[in-house]
Amino acid sequence: MELKFIDGGVCAVDGVLASGCREGKYGVGIIISKDSNAAAIFTSNTVRAEPVKLTEKVMRDGKLSAIVANSGNANCFTGKEGMDDAVRMAERVSEAASVDMDDVAVASTGVIGRRMPLEIIERLIDDAAGRLENSPRASRELAEAIMTTDTYPKEVAVEFELKNGKKARIGAVAKGSGMIAPNMATMLAFITTDVDATPSELKKALRRAADESFNMLIIDGDESTNDMVIITSTCRSGRMDGNFQEALKVVCRKLAWMMARDGEGATKSFMVDVVNAKDSEDARKAARAIAGSSLVKTAIFGADPNWGRIVAAAGYSGAEFNPDDISVSLESDAGSVTVVRRGEILAFEDTGELELAEEIMKEKEIRIIVDLAAGSSGATAYGCDLTYDYVRINAEYTT
Amino acid sequence: MELKFIDGGVCAVDGVLASGCREGKYGVGIIISKDSNAAAIFTSNTVRAEPVKLTEKVMRDGKLSAIVANSGNANCFTGKEGMDDAVRMAERVSEAASVDMDDVAVASTGVIGRRMPLEIIERLIDDAAGRLENSPRASRELAEAIMTTDTYPKEVAVEFELKNGKKARIGAVAKGSGMIAPNMATMLAFITTDVDATPSELKKALRRAADESFNMLIIDGDESTNDMVIITSTCRSGRMDGNFQEALKVVCRKLAWMMARDGEGATKSFMVDVVNAKDSEDARKAARAIAGSSLVKTAIFGADPNWGRIVAAAGYSGAEFNPDDISVSLESDAGSVTVVRRGEILAFEDTGELELAEEIMKEKEIRIIVDLAAGSSGATAYGCDLTYDYVRINAEYTT
Repeated sequence: MELKFIDGGVCAVDGVLASGCREGKYGVGIIISKDSNAAAIFTSNTVRAEPVKLTEKVMRDGKLSAIVANSGNANCFTGKEGMDDAVRMAERVSEAASVDMDDVAVASTGVIGRRMPLEIIERLIDDAAGRLENSPRASRELAEAIMTTDTYPKEVAVEFELKNGKKARIGAVAKGSGMIAPNMATMLAFITTDVDATPSELKKALRRAADESFNMLIIDGDESTNDMVIITSTCRSGRMDGNFQEALKVVCRKLAWMMARDGEGATKSFMVDVVNAKDSEDARKAARAIAGSSLVKTAIFGADPNWGRIVAAAGYSGAEFNPDDISVSLESDAGSVTVVRRGEILAFEDTGELELAEEIMKEKEIRIIVDLAAGSSGATAYGCDLTYDYVRINAEYTT
Repeated sequence: MELKFIDGGVCAVDGVLASGCREGKYGVGIIISKDSNAAAIFTSNTVRAEPVKLTEKVMRDGKLSAIVANSGNANCFTGKEGMDDAVRMAERVSEAASVDMDDVAVASTGVIGRRMPLEIIERLIDDAAGRLENSPRASRELAEAIMTTDTYPKEVAVEFELKNGKKARIGAVAKGSGMIAPNMATMLAFITTDVDATPSELKKALRRAADESFNMLIIDGDESTNDMVIITSTCRSGRMDGNFQEALKVVCRKLAWMMARDGEGATKSFMVDVVNAKDSEDARKAARAIAGSSLVKTAIFGADPNWGRIVAAAGYSGAEFNPDDISVSLESDAGSVTVVRRGEILAFEDTGELELAEEIMKEKEIRIIVDLAAGSSGATAYGCDLTYDYVRINAEYTT
């Protein structure tokens, strides 16, 4: 399949409008994709923010015309008043952008347990609604409006060919696992496309793509009360097929990798490729355990080629393998080296392997390849290092 | 049941001998409890150190006469030579202390992936074997010999009455989840008693007690390749009964709490009491998720009464509850305060509750009580804060 990265974020898709604006620590972004088929996945946390509840209800019919997202306040643990506030946001977008309020999704990220500053948010909604347009600039402003402690806006867009040769596009913006104290690390991603697909086809495709991207991203293991990923389709291009699924996976993986790179306090990011696992469940478990291990994360921070921690994390992941058969390799711009081959340590003290491994670990982006030699399934997980700054960001805040 | 804490560690039990000595970063401790019934639990990590494999085999008959433990080298991922080294340690103890080598358990903690410095270890074994005695000092030297990055030795001993009025004792030493780079955080605990119990009774009692203590202790979520808890009984006192089970739980909980207090880089420790959960599985899940949350742990470090992170961690734990019914209280030497009552936030900005909550969080030991209002089961988990020093200890080492 041919696929190329293009500019424009969500606005790479024809007919999609976007805008965003900020006022102090608050921001509002709007996406308009009128009368679109749509699907979403939400946090599996039992504690769910009010906008999550509202959006889930609104999307039951698989239709959306608009998405409004705010940063600065998560509208979580805010009870009946919080739900009223979320509804009020949808109403305001409905009025300002002339869409049915039952087709407006609402997403929030920020501090939890505080009432929404509705006056500010409504002013920002009006402002954003007045500036909606289909342009790379508009998508960029949207991406910036939903940032919290993110250090850069996150956008992706791709153009690819469906199997019948027809061109199609997918665009996306996201906010990463930066955290605005005292909130959880919320992940929001909004994806647009022109591929012709029913809501249930979109849902299936989104779930599959998320399973190999967002669900394999581990910043600190804490799952937010506000996570939300939405995909909308104008259905103006050809029928969905395997190429769409593939392109959607590329987009979601790219977003996940951007979020890993921008994890709170992170100085380095890494991906864990587990190969030759017994089955895909085992591959996922092992990759996630390694990417989530505090010991592996601090080793990455310290540029320590600590294969022992990697092997031990695989060991407690629940994946089946024989420690005598495991192999571990490290890769980065500095090179590639196998440190453990079929249970045998190659990177002992004073070996060339160890020297190279140390050079590899000094780079900003590192790839860990773990061969379990137990089957033929694989999985990739994304993570970032655990640093002094992570502790600082999350400890220094006092309510 | 009457129970009092006494001195003496493992030597509080009549007939038990102990000793320990160190040389640089290496230490060896020996416990002799001749012809004892015994049981053990081992790490569930797929990757297991050689002494774990050996000891599991040795203990199949439920009998032990001696335990030898060394610090400084974990003898893990060392293959056939590593097993030979573990066997050699057992042999040496067997010769020096005149016990059957099939009745010697071996435990190791320290660096992984390196050959044992057998010459040093054997010298230490001989030295320790020559100084075996039944005294508080001997138990203390044993506890010191097995320390790695622990900042203090860990011992407990209790005397209690069995139901028939007969006095019985349990003694214990442990090393905590301090970590010797680049090893995992290894937990070792050796428990002695005079209660008359079969190996399978001991095993059942130990498993139960561990489920409410060691298995609820979360330092960094990484499970070591070397964890081992052994109990031996001289069987000189009365038959085991419910009082023994209760006393064993007290001992194991005390050890777990000591380890939490001495977690790597920890400045504060906390316990999480989950009450009124649907069932005990749910209570355990919620308590563990809260104690293991990086966000809760950094909040404890920052003295932040961040109930939002506590509630959210309960939310992703998988425990069933209605967020509108949850209550959260905080307790320490500074007082006790309810910050969330049945879903309603009491500790809003500028309330007396918030002020008190902040005072409470400044103490060294904190108790978090979470009422799920979903049933009548409870569980307690033990944790420590996540600090700059945790990152430093685990990042600064380079292989």
